[in-house]
Amino acid sequence: MRIGIVGAGALGLYYGAMLQRSGQDVRFLLRSDYRAIRDNGLQVRSVDGDFHLEKVQGFRRPEDIGPVDLVMVGLKTFANHRLVELVRPLLGDRTAILTLQNGLGNEELLAAALGAERVLGGIAFLCANRGEPGTLLHLGQGHIRLGELVGGPSERAEAIAARFRSSGIQCEAVADLRRARWEKLVWNIPFNGLCALTGRDVTDLLAGLPGRQQVRYLMEEVVMAANAQGLSEKIPRDFIDRMIEFTDGMDHYRPSMMIDRLEGRPLELEAIYGIPLKMAAEKGLDMARVGMLYALLAAGEPL
Amino acid sequence: MRIGIVGAGALGLYYGAMLQRSGQDVRFLLRSDYRAIRDNGLQVRSVDGDFHLEKVQGFRRPEDIGPVDLVMVGLKTFANHRLVELVRPLLGDRTAILTLQNGLGNEELLAAALGAERVLGGIAFLCANRGEPGTLLHLGQGHIRLGELVGGPSERAEAIAARFRSSGIQCEAVADLRRARWEKLVWNIPFNGLCALTGRDVTDLLAGLPGRQQVRYLMEEVVMAANAQGLSEKIPRDFIDRMIEFTDGMDHYRPSMMIDRLEGRPLELEAIYGIPLKMAAEKGLDMARVGMLYALLAAGEPL
Repeated sequence: MRIGIVGAGALGLYYGAMLQRSGQDVRFLLRSDYRAIRDNGLQVRSVDGDFHLEKVQGFRRPEDIGPVDLVMVGLKTFANHRLVELVRPLLGDRTAILTLQNGLGNEELLAAALGAERVLGGIAFLCANRGEPGTLLHLGQGHIRLGELVGGPSERAEAIAARFRSSGIQCEAVADLRRARWEKLVWNIPFNGLCALTGRDVTDLLAGLPGRQQVRYLMEEVVMAANAQGLSEKIPRDFIDRMIEFTDGMDHYRPSMMIDRLEGRPLELEAIYGIPLKMAAEKGLDMARVGMLYALLAAGEPL
Repeated sequence: MRIGIVGAGALGLYYGAMLQRSGQDVRFLLRSDYRAIRDNGLQVRSVDGDFHLEKVQGFRRPEDIGPVDLVMVGLKTFANHRLVELVRPLLGDRTAILTLQNGLGNEELLAAALGAERVLGGIAFLCANRGEPGTLLHLGQGHIRLGELVGGPSERAEAIAARFRSSGIQCEAVADLRRARWEKLVWNIPFNGLCALTGRDVTDLLAGLPGRQQVRYLMEEVVMAANAQGLSEKIPRDFIDRMIEFTDGMDHYRPSMMIDRLEGRPLELEAIYGIPLKMAAEKGLDMARVGMLYALLAAGEPL
């Protein structure tokens, strides 16, 4: 299977490396890591065991990659104005596009420009950061839940999930992608924003009662908004307890938005906050605390 | 009139300097500025005209100041655990104590330890920062509203207000000190916290629609809580518009809490957030956004 990786940050590099290691023909669109990876390959430092890919097919321009069977998108959503132009050159007649980006709106953006029938979405539960150029740190997890944008369960989604699993990636196809996306937001909305704003990792944030309470309040707002979206099945209240418990098990993890802010990058505000807030408002719901978090994060962005 | 200044930050230095210039016997309890002021006096750079006090009575220990007629307190509230011990040595039989500190709870702290009959409180509308040691920057405003902790209007409050006015400080005695304190919180709660958290001054904060909206939401919560406290007169809704308009007239002002955070000092969280939240909760009211702001500020404090 020929797979093109668009947006080779920590997420794109990790999954691409796993797929290549299992024998897939993986082609990476690279930017800052291009030279380091061309010269030295890709080093993966993983909790599941380190490995090194000596030969990596890295490209600087999407036109040079050519058509692939599957485009996997890991682009930061603040760069979504370039998403379509980066993906289009990789499309053949039957190419599927799987976006593993954060938040809402990414599948719809791809569908509007490239055709809804091509598009799948996935939610990645991955703790990974980039190290030095050419090095990827896999700190834990890696599970993917993926599904079709339209039409529910499909053989294609099942086949992709099976391919991931045979590469050592836990992966399952889900019937309701939108529900999976909202479930992930229950985690992303509190932790990404609160950690970015306070400069505290998830462990330090949860260690203090005020922070812990705000996490819960924010999660309650997201579950309320999610359950107004006509999902196939409502998100139950105890999902919040499970998410907090799951996070208590992390060891000082820094969510991607916290790292983005520390490193001076823009934040993924629209995908994680702006669009979910709009979707709640369209159902007549006010996520008051989420709105405040969004405003505070936006106010702190470069003027 | 002999006046002792306890807590000679920007506020204490400014009002003390104004009073001394008009001929009062002012004695400052100093810490970091002690040496600079002893050697070179106090330089006031003011929008109303610079002036220099060559001889300043500065002391390192409150015991050396001796009894005064009026103790004026400008201590940061995060140092309130030391407040009583710093004030006590300045008390004679009829000494009045006027606290110009931020937020709620300061008069009550003084009253519990030193007698409620001694205590007045005042709200200072002052834009001032410290410059180099021995230098005070007065950027604008300076108006004080003061009143008795108990018993309503008094000759003593009127006399102190007159003394301030004859020193060139706009000052009025108010009948309901608690109302004046809550009015000030309508400004302090949004601007101090939002600016500290986002690193934006009031002008930049108000320039963006999300920040501007959150200021209004927060003010609405504070007005709601204030009007549940049994004040002599409710705070009207258009007070919020007036406060925002007033702030639009400021030129990139940085609230004290923003400066505290930028300079690595603790924040005045209890006086400005913790106690007001408790007082709202006692009336069965939830200031949801204020609580979130408090939690975010607390989470960012040194662990």
